[in-house]
Amino acid sequence: MKFTYTGIRVRNMDASIRFYTQVMGMKLVLRERMEATGGEFAHLKSPASAQRLELNWYPETSPYCTPYSEGAELDHLAFWVRDVDSTLRDLKGKGAQAAVEPFSETGYRLAFVKDPDGIWIELIGRERRRRP
Amino acid sequence: MKFTYTGIRVRNMDASIRFYTQVMGMKLVLRERMEATGGEFAHLKSPASAQRLELNWYPETSPYCTPYSEGAELDHLAFWVRDVDSTLRDLKGKGAQAAVEPFSETGYRLAFVKDPDGIWIELIGRERRRRP
Repeated sequence: MKFTYTGIRVRNMDASIRFYTQVMGMKLVLRERMEATGGEFAHLKSPASAQRLELNWYPETSPYCTPYSEGAELDHLAFWVRDVDSTLRDLKGKGAQAAVEPFSETGYRLAFVKDPDGIWIELIGRERRRRP
Repeated sequence: MKFTYTGIRVRNMDASIRFYTQVMGMKLVLRERMEATGGEFAHLKSPASAQRLELNWYPETSPYCTPYSEGAELDHLAFWVRDVDSTLRDLKGKGAQAAVEPFSETGYRLAFVKDPDGIWIELIGRERRRRP
């Protein structure tokens, strides 16, 4: 038994695939219809990581198509980056909305952006020493 | 930039670590205090997978300790298994609560259990031909 992916729910599959590929740099691995629900799912991965993200979309006729509400279970999706500050600037330039501006903690640098459904995405990297 | 883990929020760190290690067979990679929030986080992985799960716990004094509500963003966490039916029986024997009993779809066998906070966990494997 092995943990293989995290499935999040999205409201607009095209918009979410666009965000995770064009803004977050992931590759689309597969996109298929769900027989049981009439919905669609897609798998994405970063080129340098085996970690997989699944996007799930349900049509309005599906019993899974409950109101899209914010909850507490999903804390965040984390992306490792070399330079948090410059990556955040780059993502903002591509249309991502910042949730938390960069800050430092115990040797790490962190910042947060939001995906198209408001899911928090953490940018984390080692603290970089700035020249004085 | 690469996707490195999914962070879920938990209400009881010890209970969740017990569930993900003793029931779901994951290994505890690290458990540390969060400087910024006064909380705690832990990383887990399955022995045969690089996929990481982060558990986050916040004390009542933390601004992140909002009411623990069910939301729509996190659809499920998926675990690949060899035999869905026998694994489900095994997990139930270890105290896991079934959310959806096993069913078949396009060559796959699926079932769902719940973690201690009610997060849906998918068991997925190839459909196994039963002897007539």
